[in-house]
Amino acid sequence: MHRFKIGERGQKMFWLHGPEREHLVRVLRLAPGDKVIGFDNSGGEWLGEVEQIYPESVGIRIVGEHYPEVEAKSSVYLVTGLAKGDKLEWVVQKGTELGMAGLVPLRAKRSVVRLEGDKARERVKRWGKIAAEAAKQCQRVREPVIYPVSAWAELRELLPEVTQWVIPYEDEQALHLSQALAELDRSLPLAILIGPEGGFEPEEVSWASDFLAARAVTLGPRILRAETAALATLTIALSQWGDLG
Amino acid sequence: MHRFKIGERGQKMFWLHGPEREHLVRVLRLAPGDKVIGFDNSGGEWLGEVEQIYPESVGIRIVGEHYPEVEAKSSVYLVTGLAKGDKLEWVVQKGTELGMAGLVPLRAKRSVVRLEGDKARERVKRWGKIAAEAAKQCQRVREPVIYPVSAWAELRELLPEVTQWVIPYEDEQALHLSQALAELDRSLPLAILIGPEGGFEPEEVSWASDFLAARAVTLGPRILRAETAALATLTIALSQWGDLG
Repeated sequence: MHRFKIGERGQKMFWLHGPEREHLVRVLRLAPGDKVIGFDNSGGEWLGEVEQIYPESVGIRIVGEHYPEVEAKSSVYLVTGLAKGDKLEWVVQKGTELGMAGLVPLRAKRSVVRLEGDKARERVKRWGKIAAEAAKQCQRVREPVIYPVSAWAELRELLPEVTQWVIPYEDEQALHLSQALAELDRSLPLAILIGPEGGFEPEEVSWASDFLAARAVTLGPRILRAETAALATLTIALSQWGDLG
Repeated sequence: MHRFKIGERGQKMFWLHGPEREHLVRVLRLAPGDKVIGFDNSGGEWLGEVEQIYPESVGIRIVGEHYPEVEAKSSVYLVTGLAKGDKLEWVVQKGTELGMAGLVPLRAKRSVVRLEGDKARERVKRWGKIAAEAAKQCQRVREPVIYPVSAWAELRELLPEVTQWVIPYEDEQALHLSQALAELDRSLPLAILIGPEGGFEPEEVSWASDFLAARAVTLGPRILRAETAALATLTIALSQWGDLG
């Protein structure tokens, strides 16, 4: 089915303008009754039926919401400690390609980088741009949300729908990530907590366990850098839950 | 058990010298009969029993080969198309942390970068150094092998022990990586073929299928950049085979 970028959308109809209208009318020669898909580049897609062709637009009746299969069915968020250099930039880029739902930059105790005020807001804006570009290139229809730089205490309010948290931690040896994932509910959102370069402090892991009911998990015997751990955990979660590979 | 860096090793014995001998004799006060582990930083480890303490060395009888659990049990290789910039550098670094057995830089048809002669050898040396550093930092005892820049026709000779190949490919829709992995034998080596920035040409996929019996697989609906695909496939293979997460 042909896909069109929506010009304007109401509750029951959407309209195509300019080149999108031209493409439908002149190139594809679609007519009233034909089915099409409309997308607005920010969220889902809509299944529609061409109703009427006007001189400046095409009116299309919405007949259903169509979530394109490109998006992961599970919602997996990354919460990553602020890190030096451009590490978070590529976690944002790769995480977007892999299919993360969003990313929260966390002020962790061992974060060497301190981002406050305007500097923090600018950085978030830049990460958002990287996410938008990566989403476009890998043909996602929903851009992951890049949240403001946050503190531990703000996490629950920031991600109110998240009830499942995992926290890879070097000192955890018993519970493997794959086992934890098998016990969690793939139909509910999950957030992965990843430390900064030096890892989390034990108090942070305790706090996450006490206040978020986060499960500390091991990724195995090899010590991964923070950014590698972030993407490996995301990859394993999405893969084990049937959304990747 | 205490671990010592081996000074010299024969078929049935190994010897510790200098500070390693001092540590065993003076600090730990071990004596004949005590069990120790010797490692040479390049491969497996050996379980030994202290036999005799000499003025300049300690002679230790090898009683068994001890593969430390930090290494992945499965051998998974990456064969990656030459790519621009520092992309291969980080595939080498992250791949080493995740647990790859080795990496072959491949002259793929769409590789924009051409590496020949001395330039190729220097680059391979640099990648080897990155792999060594990453192996050390994540506490691996076996450094992944970085192979020379190679052509398609050289792959079989280069990796003679590899009989299982997968090739993620955009035009493959049916066979998912996870399904292919479930059908493969985790006790045998596996190589993952990853294209350069523009992906593989259809002829290359056909060649791999005909001459290597490579299985074309899909990683799912999101189009991943080459370097993301390399690390995601490696992560999924090691995770599904019980070596990660």
